Amino acid sequence: MKSLTEYLWFELPRRRGFVNITDTVEDLVRKSGVQEGLCLVNAMHITASVFINDAEEGLLQDFDDWLEKLAPHEPIGQYRHNRTGEDNADAHLKRQVMGREVVVAITKGRLDLGPWEQIFYGEFDGRRRKRVLVKIIGE
Amino acid sequence: MKSLTEYLWFELPRRRGFVNITDTVEDLVRKSGVQEGLCLVNAMHITASVFINDAEEGLLQDFDDWLEKLAPHEPIGQYRHNRTGEDNADAHLKRQVMGREVVVAITKGRLDLGPWEQIFYGEFDGRRRKRVLVKIIGE
Amino acid sequence: MKSLTEYLWFELPRRRGFVNITDTVEDLVRKSGVQEGLCLVNAMHITASVFINDAEEGLLQDFDDWLEKLAPHEPIGQYRHNRTGEDNADAHLKRQVMGREVVVAITKGRLDLGPWEQIFYGEFDGRRRKRVLVKIIGE
Repeated sequence: MKSLTEYLWFELPRRRGFVNITDTVEDLVRKSGVQEGLCLVNAMHITASVFINDAEEGLLQDFDDWLEKLAPHEPIGQYRHNRTGEDNADAHLKRQVMGREVVVAITKGRLDLGPWEQIFYGEFDGRRRKRVLVKIIGE
Repeated sequence: MKSLTEYLWFELPRRRGFVNITDTVEDLVRKSGVQEGLCLVNAMHITASVFINDAEEGLLQDFDDWLEKLAPHEPIGQYRHNRTGEDNADAHLKRQVMGREVVVAITKGRLDLGPWEQIFYGEFDGRRRKRVLVKIIGE
Repeated sequence: MKSLTEYLWFELPRRRGFVNITDTVEDLVRKSGVQEGLCLVNAMHITASVFINDAEEGLLQDFDDWLEKLAPHEPIGQYRHNRTGEDNADAHLKRQVMGREVVVAITKGRLDLGPWEQIFYGEFDGRRRKRVLVKIIGE
């Protein structure tokens, strides 16, 4: 069994944002030499997500609007968590909707993605350095 | 390490629907010959889901009603994504709630499911051909 | 390839609750002897979740309030599923938001978690015995 472990760093300039990381993950699959296996990509922080969806700017904005409706940032006093001095309770909630991780098949040495599948890092409490873990196992 | 890769095709006659694919996945586990391992099942399209829940008709209808409340299809003009000519922005959102994939343990050559766990394909923008990927690795 | 399969049992005294299971899972990783691999932790019941988020009491209460807003328990007659004699349709919905499973990387014989990542069992229909599956594969 082969394996590869890599940590990607992010620091987004605003509270919320999305970054397409498909090419970076694909490069790591190549580097791993794994032909058949699984690739786990997960946020290591609990106010961020890794998810797969469409690389379409309008849709990413729709996600942002929708998450803000499901779990509004303000008023920050509506969340018990924010009594700890934080203002990011909404980010913990938003990340549950979008998910922590994706697991992608590796077939013939490539990410086995559908035609429109793109891997995104989703940030809901930015302006700090955060990591994403890529773990590849297989043969 | 053994592995197996298979693609399941779906074309649902309506916009939304659920299909129980548990038996099909179980057959693939048997075919793989894997005794101990992991089975990834994921939608390859970004307006569909693979999830695990109960095979109860009333509940599946509850899911449909609930998702329509969380991310209504209409008015389609409420979503920026639909300005591209699509009308399926809601389907991209619904799929995030239900999830893209499941990872199921394989133990002694069988899917290691709880008593009520059933694997479903969830379609939110049907009437077109779509694929689900089954990737099995283990020994 | 090494593997380990373990079932954790829970019986929560109330309908809803969260249990931090990080140390238990970490112990199983040690027991497995796996140095590089993947650890799947999933609810085996469809009205419960396994998820990763913050071990902060206020936030856990925020999750509970928020899920109750997204998928209220009452009136129970609002859900078709409850016509079967159940009163737990909301629990099936809540679990989709929080997710069924997490997949965590194992690196150098340890769970490769970010600084605040903690693994939780989330119960939405308690007062009955339920299981969580831990499946570890790797080398």
